[in-house]
Amino acid sequence: MDKTRLEAFSDGVIAVAITLLVIDLRVPEPEEGVSLAHQLGDQWPSYAAYVVSFLTIGVIWINHHATLRRLRSVDRSILIINVILLMTIVVLPFTTALMARYLLEDAGNRLSALVYGGSLLVMSVVFLALNWHLLSRRAHLLIDDVSPDYRRTVMRRNALGVAPYLPATLGALISPYITLAISAALAVYFLLPSTTPETPPSAASPTPPNRGSSPSP
Amino acid sequence: MDKTRLEAFSDGVIAVAITLLVIDLRVPEPEEGVSLAHQLGDQWPSYAAYVVSFLTIGVIWINHHATLRRLRSVDRSILIINVILLMTIVVLPFTTALMARYLLEDAGNRLSALVYGGSLLVMSVVFLALNWHLLSRRAHLLIDDVSPDYRRTVMRRNALGVAPYLPATLGALISPYITLAISAALAVYFLLPSTTPETPPSAASPTPPNRGSSPSP
Amino acid sequence: MDKTRLEAFSDGVIAVAITLLVIDLRVPEPEEGVSLAHQLGDQWPSYAAYVVSFLTIGVIWINHHATLRRLRSVDRSILIINVILLMTIVVLPFTTALMARYLLEDAGNRLSALVYGGSLLVMSVVFLALNWHLLSRRAHLLIDDVSPDYRRTVMRRNALGVAPYLPATLGALISPYITLAISAALAVYFLLPSTTPETPPSAASPTPPNRGSSPSP
Amino acid sequence: MDKTRLEAFSDGVIAVAITLLVIDLRVPEPEEGVSLAHQLGDQWPSYAAYVVSFLTIGVIWINHHATLRRLRSVDRSILIINVILLMTIVVLPFTTALMARYLLEDAGNRLSALVYGGSLLVMSVVFLALNWHLLSRRAHLLIDDVSPDYRRTVMRRNALGVAPYLPATLGALISPYITLAISAALAVYFLLPSTTPETPPSAASPTPPNRGSSPSP
Repeated sequence: MDKTRLEAFSDGVIAVAITLLVIDLRVPEPEEGVSLAHQLGDQWPSYAAYVVSFLTIGVIWINHHATLRRLRSVDRSILIINVILLMTIVVLPFTTALMARYLLEDAGNRLSALVYGGSLLVMSVVFLALNWHLLSRRAHLLIDDVSPDYRRTVMRRNALGVAPYLPATLGALISPYITLAISAALAVYFLLPSTTPETPPSAASPTPPNRGSSPSP
Repeated sequence: MDKTRLEAFSDGVIAVAITLLVIDLRVPEPEEGVSLAHQLGDQWPSYAAYVVSFLTIGVIWINHHATLRRLRSVDRSILIINVILLMTIVVLPFTTALMARYLLEDAGNRLSALVYGGSLLVMSVVFLALNWHLLSRRAHLLIDDVSPDYRRTVMRRNALGVAPYLPATLGALISPYITLAISAALAVYFLLPSTTPETPPSAASPTPPNRGSSPSP
Repeated sequence: MDKTRLEAFSDGVIAVAITLLVIDLRVPEPEEGVSLAHQLGDQWPSYAAYVVSFLTIGVIWINHHATLRRLRSVDRSILIINVILLMTIVVLPFTTALMARYLLEDAGNRLSALVYGGSLLVMSVVFLALNWHLLSRRAHLLIDDVSPDYRRTVMRRNALGVAPYLPATLGALISPYITLAISAALAVYFLLPSTTPETPPSAASPTPPNRGSSPSP
Repeated sequence: MDKTRLEAFSDGVIAVAITLLVIDLRVPEPEEGVSLAHQLGDQWPSYAAYVVSFLTIGVIWINHHATLRRLRSVDRSILIINVILLMTIVVLPFTTALMARYLLEDAGNRLSALVYGGSLLVMSVVFLALNWHLLSRRAHLLIDDVSPDYRRTVMRRNALGVAPYLPATLGALISPYITLAISAALAVYFLLPSTTPETPPSAASPTPPNRGSSPSP
């Protein structure tokens, strides 16, 4: 099965999901005695959440891109895991809006951050599962034969990409700002070009697929 | 007529429709004396409906993908049926939100589930019509000459994919949970790789198109 | 300039615009003493408008498809007219919702239908302008040299596609149902495969572009 | 890294962002004693803002198109800057709606126009940064070796494309209409085919990339 339409569909879904984040930036209604500057200032959690989630979904797209580039073709099992991955990505505008709405509330602020962190955690776990499935069980669909070493490197990096979302999620029990801060730091960190030396799948590989092995969210 | 843009447009429409499902996940407003946990818990029909409809549209996309892969090129009649199919897919975020909103209400819960089941039924009937049109009346546009046997197999499977949506729809007259449960079971069942042995269109076919013959919703 | 990205961008915009039509199908809030069946029944203008506008935008997409297929490449002037055309397409979900909301109101029903008909009229005029520009002033960018005859045929058909939107628009001054009925009839008529014999651009053309010469909205 | 998916993803995001502009065109609710004509007339800032922002994002897309066409392939640094550019584009439906909502209000009209102008300014600065990065630091990824002269020309034009957004933004401190007028003039000006003679990167270049060197927003 050709992978072109899988890429096109995934690109489309991720593009819509990342753009729907703007819908949660609400134009405040004019209010007697409250300046617009004050109203917009009060919305800062929405802006912060917009930036963090936009960069995070941007990173997801880059890594999804890298993951599919390693594939020659796809089968139905890959389509299925990909649909589930997309389902966990598309929910992010909702959990983003939830956290942004409750960040400054006394009640519900921890729970909403817990849900936000949890949604990122679930998404990164499914991403890890997709990579594990491709590398361990669909190695014959990869562009190049991958060495056990390369496989281990990619899996270790992906696992390292999942791990920080656990404290990001659980940190919400102490304060929602912990979740926001760790998520922001991870988005920036994953976005930056990896500085560690990368292991190509084989020394003579003409198309170095190592770019894709940076930690995924 | 080239089929590339038909695929691109269909992918785009289905990608937007599947992503718009998230719009029906509403952030509850803070309410005196009601915890956020309780409010989110009360929204469980929305989450359940989101998952069921997301997986269902995901299956539609996979099967649409498989259907178009059998084609060499398209003509205007195919474009027309495809536009109508897309019209029945795009309406699903509305019927999903309708069922989710009324599932826990005493009045309207059966009607809303009837509408939801009915929208899935109509969509699967149009999908069956598209396949019937391609196999019976546009066989010259298919990648390979299809044997009458193969044609019958695909049609029988597609018809089997339509049938369960009839009890799913009518079950709403008894209880909306019947509709939700059957729809959920069907989404999961259709998503799973088919376990039955598949009949290739011809024994020597170099590009086995049999993957596409799994039951469609 | 390559036309691939122009097609991709136009497909994307039209796909989003056609899908946003579903946003105007609103889930009614439960209301004391009014059954859901009654509430949904009262929304029939929204359903009718959804179907008419969906089919109309579907026709636009098919014809846009046909128009671009005649092109070898594009220049900046084509991109500009195309952006303006997209601007008139994207506004249709708004004018659709406007007409649907006011169809059953005593006040505003004619004006809203006038706006709806007018938006279709403007869109079809811009579409005609795009075709005129391509055929008259950018003939060197077409796939095949077009004969003056073929050019006249396409232009006449496109003009015939614009004309009925004038009575559709002005009919709103008498009754909004005239606008809705003519728009519905046109969407169905344009969607049907053209039954008139088609004139190929040249007798020996290996790629018959005549499919694209059916009347456009 | 192949640039196809970068183009597809960017096209998708820009297509959704430009289409979401229609969401801010609101259907007014029927109101006792106020005609629909009057209500629609009162919404003129929304229509004006829709047109200005649609054309502006259209220009962005055309120039983004032109920028990527100069590239042979992309690396992670380009993906990163592109994600940030998309983030500044996707925010435009929000700042557009904000300016439109407050244009006729006594309080908040200048601030909202300042935010609108500022969002265009930030977006054009990031676009300039992307071009600077490509031309100065990723010249080896360009289709043709670019001469220092060509590089200077593109950069000067891009800088000229940024400059007018400074008075457009600051003008909001005097009157929001200054921001709207300058933004509208810029959208139209940038949309028009450039009239200045263009400098090809090299005299013998078979694929003249000069179209892309028109001023960007």
